[in-house]
Amino acid sequence: MPLAEAAGRVLAEPVVAAEDVPAFDRSTVDGYAVIAEDTFGAAEGAPALLEVVGTVEMGRPAGFRLTAGQAGAVPTGGSLPEGADAVVMVEHSVIPGEGLVELTRPVAPGENVVRAGEDIRRATEVLPAGRRLAPADVGVLAAVGVTEPVCFARPRVAVIPTGDEIVPPDAPVCRPGQVRDVVSVALAALISRDGGVPRVSDVVPDRREALEAAVSGVLPESELVLVLGGSSVGARDHTAAVIDRCGPPGVLFHGLALKPGKPTLFGVCGGVGKGDRAVAVFGLPGHPVSALVVYRLLVRTALRLVAGEAVPAWRDEAGADPLEATVAATLTRAVPSDQGREDYVCVRLRPSEAAPPPAGAGAGPPGSGRGAVLLAEPVFGKSGLITMLAQADGLVRIPAGRRGLEPGTEVEVILLD
Amino acid sequence: MPLAEAAGRVLAEPVVAAEDVPAFDRSTVDGYAVIAEDTFGAAEGAPALLEVVGTVEMGRPAGFRLTAGQAGAVPTGGSLPEGADAVVMVEHSVIPGEGLVELTRPVAPGENVVRAGEDIRRATEVLPAGRRLAPADVGVLAAVGVTEPVCFARPRVAVIPTGDEIVPPDAPVCRPGQVRDVVSVALAALISRDGGVPRVSDVVPDRREALEAAVSGVLPESELVLVLGGSSVGARDHTAAVIDRCGPPGVLFHGLALKPGKPTLFGVCGGVGKGDRAVAVFGLPGHPVSALVVYRLLVRTALRLVAGEAVPAWRDEAGADPLEATVAATLTRAVPSDQGREDYVCVRLRPSEAAPPPAGAGAGPPGSGRGAVLLAEPVFGKSGLITMLAQADGLVRIPAGRRGLEPGTEVEVILLD
Repeated sequence: MPLAEAAGRVLAEPVVAAEDVPAFDRSTVDGYAVIAEDTFGAAEGAPALLEVVGTVEMGRPAGFRLTAGQAGAVPTGGSLPEGADAVVMVEHSVIPGEGLVELTRPVAPGENVVRAGEDIRRATEVLPAGRRLAPADVGVLAAVGVTEPVCFARPRVAVIPTGDEIVPPDAPVCRPGQVRDVVSVALAALISRDGGVPRVSDVVPDRREALEAAVSGVLPESELVLVLGGSSVGARDHTAAVIDRCGPPGVLFHGLALKPGKPTLFGVCGGVGKGDRAVAVFGLPGHPVSALVVYRLLVRTALRLVAGEAVPAWRDEAGADPLEATVAATLTRAVPSDQGREDYVCVRLRPSEAAPPPAGAGAGPPGSGRGAVLLAEPVFGKSGLITMLAQADGLVRIPAGRRGLEPGTEVEVILLD
Repeated sequence: MPLAEAAGRVLAEPVVAAEDVPAFDRSTVDGYAVIAEDTFGAAEGAPALLEVVGTVEMGRPAGFRLTAGQAGAVPTGGSLPEGADAVVMVEHSVIPGEGLVELTRPVAPGENVVRAGEDIRRATEVLPAGRRLAPADVGVLAAVGVTEPVCFARPRVAVIPTGDEIVPPDAPVCRPGQVRDVVSVALAALISRDGGVPRVSDVVPDRREALEAAVSGVLPESELVLVLGGSSVGARDHTAAVIDRCGPPGVLFHGLALKPGKPTLFGVCGGVGKGDRAVAVFGLPGHPVSALVVYRLLVRTALRLVAGEAVPAWRDEAGADPLEATVAATLTRAVPSDQGREDYVCVRLRPSEAAPPPAGAGAGPPGSGRGAVLLAEPVFGKSGLITMLAQADGLVRIPAGRRGLEPGTEVEVILLD
């Protein structure tokens, strides 16, 4: 990949530095490069007097060397002259006359210096394979002169909308009984953002043969397949039957103790005895909110894995992902939930009515001042309402062991974006 | 914008629905469409007996109408026949003989039905101008058949690296005194991800005239300009002088009570008396960590604002952004900080050694089980070390009023990505 396009891509091989960074002993301050020993014992009343034998220019080798009793002026980031092993800050210097400097503080060897290779040592691994390159990582590659990192291809993700009632978003009219396909375009946007290449199929009618043809057609050119459930009876059974026929192993789970998302289905096609290409297939609920919640909770991680990313798989004692970033808020209304099932509730965020004092006023707690400022208003609605998507700012998780949450509960909100 | 490319873009005008969603009265369950009144008083022992006069097919108008004493079979998502005002779930029905159904529970008018326009009413605003379209929003636009939303152009962001010591990442060799440009490519990746169009200039030497030429050159074709400071003495003064000459108003602040990021500089060029085009200009610290922290804390918001986004400006009592999503962790080592200055410390995250029990085991608190599982290890290093970027997973904020943090402190970590 060209470096300018590498952010978000996954390294296919480790990056090893071909050079030392910095490539030279480098000053971290403006001051005087010295032989540290020459400054030992220096103090305000008893400065070390040294001969200034040169001035280092930025971006160039020093071009001179020090022997005992000598110093060289050096800027922050400048190269140390040969023989020098430390830098005295300019604040601790006095010029008593031309070509001389008095230093009023001692320095230890290595003080105010980054040694050649101290930041990154030549031939060491800078970033591992499986790393998804963050913007800062791209900077790290630039530092070692790697301008074409080797990355995995982006996984291709087929999105197959199904349902006799579904028409594409650009259908000229929506007749009685018909609804526009909301989920495919939203999923395609999520897949792109999360590093995949989405391809949305034409809408498949609720017939098993049609679905089988659609799934078989995309398998050879996909690393991940998402079948969007029709909401009618039997549509989900079609999906299960089709995944089983494309196995082994076929369907691995069908139904989750999760709301929304209960009818989620997962399988692998062609993983055993049909060559190397195993393709993961999800059957997602047809309701927009359900489909997007399941994407967020399950599909995104699957996508990262098929992309080759080394995904950390930590879970805390309640089964949540501690790497899922959240904001703190106070729940405004009660939220019911059944025990034995993990619930996710859409909430809308707004500032609490007690206006906060001006920024920087006080000695608050570290971190982001959690639990103080935001209210989380549950967004309720009949099953499948699309407006819930526009209103919800985030999700609140209710662990399987809880029976709902009381108003006033401090909750952690997973932001939807 | 075509809808498939609209995620992440900012709406330039509000989106108003041109049609009702749903376009028809729609069942939310599998069951029997009825006139609610016909079921009043129905019970297990005293079912309402109705004549079944039709079956609704998915995706089609019902094609029949109900009068008193009649019912029609309807699938989830199916269209209600004319005359019907509620649906009885199939679970509460018995078929006593062909063409008949017994309903064992009453329904109220509207029960198990989404009325035409109940989700989105024609001629109402669906999404406001200034909204940055999330993937779910794109789904909402699809729901109302808007396939070409009107969005603002992406803001153009000029990135100007400066410094006699800086060479481009693809320089064949890095000579003594030279360092590769780390910050420009990392900032360009951040700018792209955050919705801007980055353009990185050639490296500008540390001369005021050269910088003035570079800034003047990019102003006409930029909405935001980032000048990356050289680390040498005087380079920052050049930037301030140049911004002042491109004013009024010129420099608005120079120096922040922030670490890293103290030398940050901000101004506006051409805002008064030189036509309409006011261009915001940041002078960023030259050190990679400092530059990326200031981008995260200040520049990103500026970029969102010049993009036309309606950015919420909430702050809590400690001056933090409550909408900044974080993860909870326990600090492993003491972190010093000066009072009167806001500090951000790079940390690396790792799981705590007490291995968590298997997922879903218990009745944990709501939210993401904060404070239990992750350790935040401060990443210290000499000024300007690039490896800090590769090691840091996030930032911990120390409010201005605090003098450092003790080991064991529960902190909120802003994830770097």
